[in-house]
Amino acid sequence: MKNFSIAKSRRLRSTPYTSRIEKQGVTAYTIYNHMLLPAAFGSIENSYKHLKENVQVWDVAAERQVEISGKDSAKLVQLMTCRDLSKSKIGRCYYCPIIDNSGNLVNDPVILKLDENKWWISIADSDVIFFAKGLAAGNNFDVKIIEPVVDIMAVQGPKSFALMEKVFGKKITELKFFGFDYFDFEETKHLIARSGWSKQGGYEVYVQNTVSGQKLYDHLFEVGKEFHVSPGCPNLIERIENALLSYGNDFDNNDNPFECGFDKYVSLDSDINFLGKEKLKQIKSKGVQKKIMGVKIDIKEINLTGSKNLYDENNNIIGELRSATYSPHFQKVIGIAMMQKSHWEVSQSFEIQINNNTFNGKVCDLPFI
Amino acid sequence: MKNFSIAKSRRLRSTPYTSRIEKQGVTAYTIYNHMLLPAAFGSIENSYKHLKENVQVWDVAAERQVEISGKDSAKLVQLMTCRDLSKSKIGRCYYCPIIDNSGNLVNDPVILKLDENKWWISIADSDVIFFAKGLAAGNNFDVKIIEPVVDIMAVQGPKSFALMEKVFGKKITELKFFGFDYFDFEETKHLIARSGWSKQGGYEVYVQNTVSGQKLYDHLFEVGKEFHVSPGCPNLIERIENALLSYGNDFDNNDNPFECGFDKYVSLDSDINFLGKEKLKQIKSKGVQKKIMGVKIDIKEINLTGSKNLYDENNNIIGELRSATYSPHFQKVIGIAMMQKSHWEVSQSFEIQINNNTFNGKVCDLPFI
Repeated sequence: MKNFSIAKSRRLRSTPYTSRIEKQGVTAYTIYNHMLLPAAFGSIENSYKHLKENVQVWDVAAERQVEISGKDSAKLVQLMTCRDLSKSKIGRCYYCPIIDNSGNLVNDPVILKLDENKWWISIADSDVIFFAKGLAAGNNFDVKIIEPVVDIMAVQGPKSFALMEKVFGKKITELKFFGFDYFDFEETKHLIARSGWSKQGGYEVYVQNTVSGQKLYDHLFEVGKEFHVSPGCPNLIERIENALLSYGNDFDNNDNPFECGFDKYVSLDSDINFLGKEKLKQIKSKGVQKKIMGVKIDIKEINLTGSKNLYDENNNIIGELRSATYSPHFQKVIGIAMMQKSHWEVSQSFEIQINNNTFNGKVCDLPFI
Repeated sequence: MKNFSIAKSRRLRSTPYTSRIEKQGVTAYTIYNHMLLPAAFGSIENSYKHLKENVQVWDVAAERQVEISGKDSAKLVQLMTCRDLSKSKIGRCYYCPIIDNSGNLVNDPVILKLDENKWWISIADSDVIFFAKGLAAGNNFDVKIIEPVVDIMAVQGPKSFALMEKVFGKKITELKFFGFDYFDFEETKHLIARSGWSKQGGYEVYVQNTVSGQKLYDHLFEVGKEFHVSPGCPNLIERIENALLSYGNDFDNNDNPFECGFDKYVSLDSDINFLGKEKLKQIKSKGVQKKIMGVKIDIKEINLTGSKNLYDENNNIIGELRSATYSPHFQKVIGIAMMQKSHWEVSQSFEIQINNNTFNGKVCDLPFI
């Protein structure tokens, strides 16, 4: 598989940590929200093993924030998501599918309630800010919508708790999952959430004071030696094994939340007002015809750079593989696929063509583990 | 300067031409509208020279279309742009700044009027589709908004006219700049515009029939040998020499159209209704404090991967360099900078730090040539 360089420019924004990760050996980037997101520091499998045992610091500044504040901010935020936020609390994070008027997904951010009238939408890879601006203008809402200077660094892995306690004290270990609070580092306050895009545990530091954040980045490596701290990034193997879905990879604006297994975040019975609500009611009553499922394929490697069709024994397309990786845990390839209704049963088989060879795979439930 | 690989995935979409350009020697990609856009085939300077003398075929499928159709489509399209489209004609392309409620830029697409109630917004790198969907929902407009299957291939360079005449006949040479019409290739109709992101002349083929488009791609190389046809892509040197501005590079959602020299596309005196109109009136009457200008710096190379501050002799920041390249034509570095009001006069000098050395530059008008 040939490598291609990334042509950097201002349009593919660097982060406050870019010069650091380049010294630390980043080898590949992806682009996420028009920004550089590290994708590999050498071997992804080595990084996966390290992440599951130790602690990593990740430059995930590409998780940009859409800040919505003002009198109508709660109304606008609720209009954008099918999840009922009427009982949401300050200091909590909420995973919220964002839905358009057709009932399709626009993004699947984590929303932080900072105050009754101030929210951060911590977005996946699409320009939610323009969706919010369009809705606000069209509805004459009294809101202010900006992309604030917030550059997240994540601290992930089983030893993240010990490392963060060493820096911020015992209080940070008491933070509940998807809770956030403010913690001092050298007299600068940082918003820190117990969250992150791995299932290995950890934190995300929403850095607003860039200089202090850079110092914190360096400090984590200085004091983290005893925990074998290393630089890292969202890991393809770890995220697929744990079925952390990715907007743009596993689903996109052609899919609705029921097709993506987000049923529990769709609050159709409440009296809240959100976009696409009637459409989603129709979709639910009709039932969906495709759904995201896991797949396992009995091969040792795959290099998926786009969608790949899955076939039944009569050569009919019955699904589309959207993400895949070799899994050291299962010792075979696992993947996330949008499957047609005929193939929603666990253990149903399908065929896939790779380099002109046909292989067999089986459907399974998500998460794999 | 170290190279970093691009980590491909479904989220960074391939185009119908990707496998072809990879065989033809593409070496670097950028990401544009969540899609692979070739950025280099080896030397950018060689490609620049070739483009100015011959003809190139470009995979610019990353210029995605937002299709707006339906009863209120004209109203929605006009709401999004400050350019007066009330006298727009079917079969014409219009360069249209898209503006938010604060008077700032969202994108600078070319808009194609396909029919009285059908438009394509051929976008630069931001998700205009979600801005349109937000506005349509907020205003209860009767429109349909989709991203159609359209994968543009551009044919650019002085010999593009002869090559396209050879394929499509004399009629295509009669197409006026920014006009479009439909032309047959092997019994498939293709929408072709006389346009493209270079000043060397040429066409853009809006490919809807993917298979026919791929055949056309191959055919252009087969019959184009006599014109020294080669694969190519938007060229950094050519586009800066000719001051083709780039959303995300030279300006973004923090800038307004007056700051970007788009004054002639801002129709404040008409009675049309567009977003940010009152705000733009205020901005115009107050006058702007920063403006895009050209700069020339007496050095032989630069590798700009983000913004770079420009200083006066007292070390005050007086501008921000946003794009730059060595220009073979001027035999020095030229660039596009957002300059503060104190430095809008041609020949004013400034200082810039590159690799710990200070160099002098001069402000100039755009375009350079």
